[in-house]
Amino acid sequence: MLRTIAPYLDRPSANLLVAAPDDDAAVWRGDPLVAATTDTMVEEIDFRLEWPGFDFRKLGGRLLAINLSDLAGMGAEPRYALVSISLPGTLAVADVRRLYRGIAEQAHRFGCQIAGGDLSGTLGPLTLTATLVGRLDSRRAMLRRDGARPGWQIAVTGRLGGAAAGLRLLESRVAPASAIERGWVSAQVDPVPRIAAGRALVKAGIRVGGDISDGLHREVERLVMPQRLGATIDIERLPLARGLRPQQWPLAVTDSEDFELICAAPQARMLRAQRALERLRLPLTVIGEIEARPGIRLRHGERFERLEAAGYQHFR
Amino acid sequence: MLRTIAPYLDRPSANLLVAAPDDDAAVWRGDPLVAATTDTMVEEIDFRLEWPGFDFRKLGGRLLAINLSDLAGMGAEPRYALVSISLPGTLAVADVRRLYRGIAEQAHRFGCQIAGGDLSGTLGPLTLTATLVGRLDSRRAMLRRDGARPGWQIAVTGRLGGAAAGLRLLESRVAPASAIERGWVSAQVDPVPRIAAGRALVKAGIRVGGDISDGLHREVERLVMPQRLGATIDIERLPLARGLRPQQWPLAVTDSEDFELICAAPQARMLRAQRALERLRLPLTVIGEIEARPGIRLRHGERFERLEAAGYQHFR
Repeated sequence: MLRTIAPYLDRPSANLLVAAPDDDAAVWRGDPLVAATTDTMVEEIDFRLEWPGFDFRKLGGRLLAINLSDLAGMGAEPRYALVSISLPGTLAVADVRRLYRGIAEQAHRFGCQIAGGDLSGTLGPLTLTATLVGRLDSRRAMLRRDGARPGWQIAVTGRLGGAAAGLRLLESRVAPASAIERGWVSAQVDPVPRIAAGRALVKAGIRVGGDISDGLHREVERLVMPQRLGATIDIERLPLARGLRPQQWPLAVTDSEDFELICAAPQARMLRAQRALERLRLPLTVIGEIEARPGIRLRHGERFERLEAAGYQHFR
Repeated sequence: MLRTIAPYLDRPSANLLVAAPDDDAAVWRGDPLVAATTDTMVEEIDFRLEWPGFDFRKLGGRLLAINLSDLAGMGAEPRYALVSISLPGTLAVADVRRLYRGIAEQAHRFGCQIAGGDLSGTLGPLTLTATLVGRLDSRRAMLRRDGARPGWQIAVTGRLGGAAAGLRLLESRVAPASAIERGWVSAQVDPVPRIAAGRALVKAGIRVGGDISDGLHREVERLVMPQRLGATIDIERLPLARGLRPQQWPLAVTDSEDFELICAAPQARMLRAQRALERLRLPLTVIGEIEARPGIRLRHGERFERLEAAGYQHFR
């Protein structure tokens, strides 16, 4: 089986001195400042082979994307990936090849080398883990969750709620019937990690931020709660995914898996960041403000909304 | 659940600048030369909760040990670990705590910080992946699988066959009844990665070697086959685990999971390495020789043995 996937592992090169599967470990020339993250996807929890249009290549791409998004959330540049996969015996070799092809394509798209991995059997669901290692330019030039100040603006990249809308379609086994629905499904199964945006935010002087794949509301909490601050989110300013109706805003606030970035900064710096992201053709939309008063408030025009429990709670 | 395991994750320090779970990724001061590896254990494939004396703390320790052994096989010094675990909902919180306690204890025993990880649910078996990142002193000072020359001696650390004998006891649900049997079981469920030995071998000038957890025969093949060389292994010289009878030598040759190291070097250098490992109270036993003639030969006094297919083939 390792021979099956060998073509998708990177060969030793100027940076990657030793690579799988020839030796016990990969060896590379290190960077002065390293960012590293690991994330797992489990069949029947994070994805289902029965979803309409399910594609192992996209699954492989998503495994890298969810980890790359964590590096993006630090403003890091991806360098190396290690991939561990537990395969049910029922999986066809052709499917495993497509899976690794998707992993390799996604890695190379973001300048990342596949340095190693592990392939094992399982009597249970397909389980995929990737560890991503990236570099940071300096200790100051990274995005952290702490450091926000009252009066700072809160902004998000891209559009929200598409991944949750796509998941609902997939879970009801409805094949997407329009470009809009295909866009939602794509946000769920084929997300684009915001690596370039993360780097651009850091270069524009942004220091507070992260990825929002665990849900916007939860990420805003993480930005303010440890410092006993609060925030108001303007529901009418949320950049909803194309085709979502305004009353579907909870998909953007409570549901998870939009692999976008959030950041907080004083207005002048945020303007600079918006201009930088315009060059990437990615919107950076101000959606609210950090406040001294604890708690997260959702403003809807003159009213304040309360969060209901999310309809579909993705288990994690 | 993350709160349950938070005490076992390392806090930011002089080297580990950012750690889980506060930010999207861990950040550390990098080393000039990095070794990295990842390995997975799957319930019902690599271990069973029904084994006599099963202990989640030892399982956690073993997850780190199998990865640390890969770093040992390169002569690397462990630095950081990232741990991804997929938990069945049936697992008790106390068991998860014991698991993480075992992981943390083993990491700290080998000077390694737990920099991050992921905890997810699964409807299937408990699945554990760790990624270990270590440092190497120089590009020359590492163990590689290639580079062996005809006439060089082949040696292994420690004693062999214990892990396989232990696995047989566990699989037949027999609780170990003697110190000898407890030793076998311990080699299987609580192996000691040979980190210090790997570093000592490299310091003694050894450049060819690796870990033998995939089985001695296979590892000797890896040392010679890519270069179209061969080897003879002296069965009578194999350092069998305490209590194994001489005719049980196949446990040491074909079965896997002895987390020992193999190396190859000219005689004078091997002697130097043996003296270095004496200081660690670890035997380094010469078991054979690299030869120009391709193929692996097993010499038993005057006779040559043929390898039978291993009785119990551990699925991987």
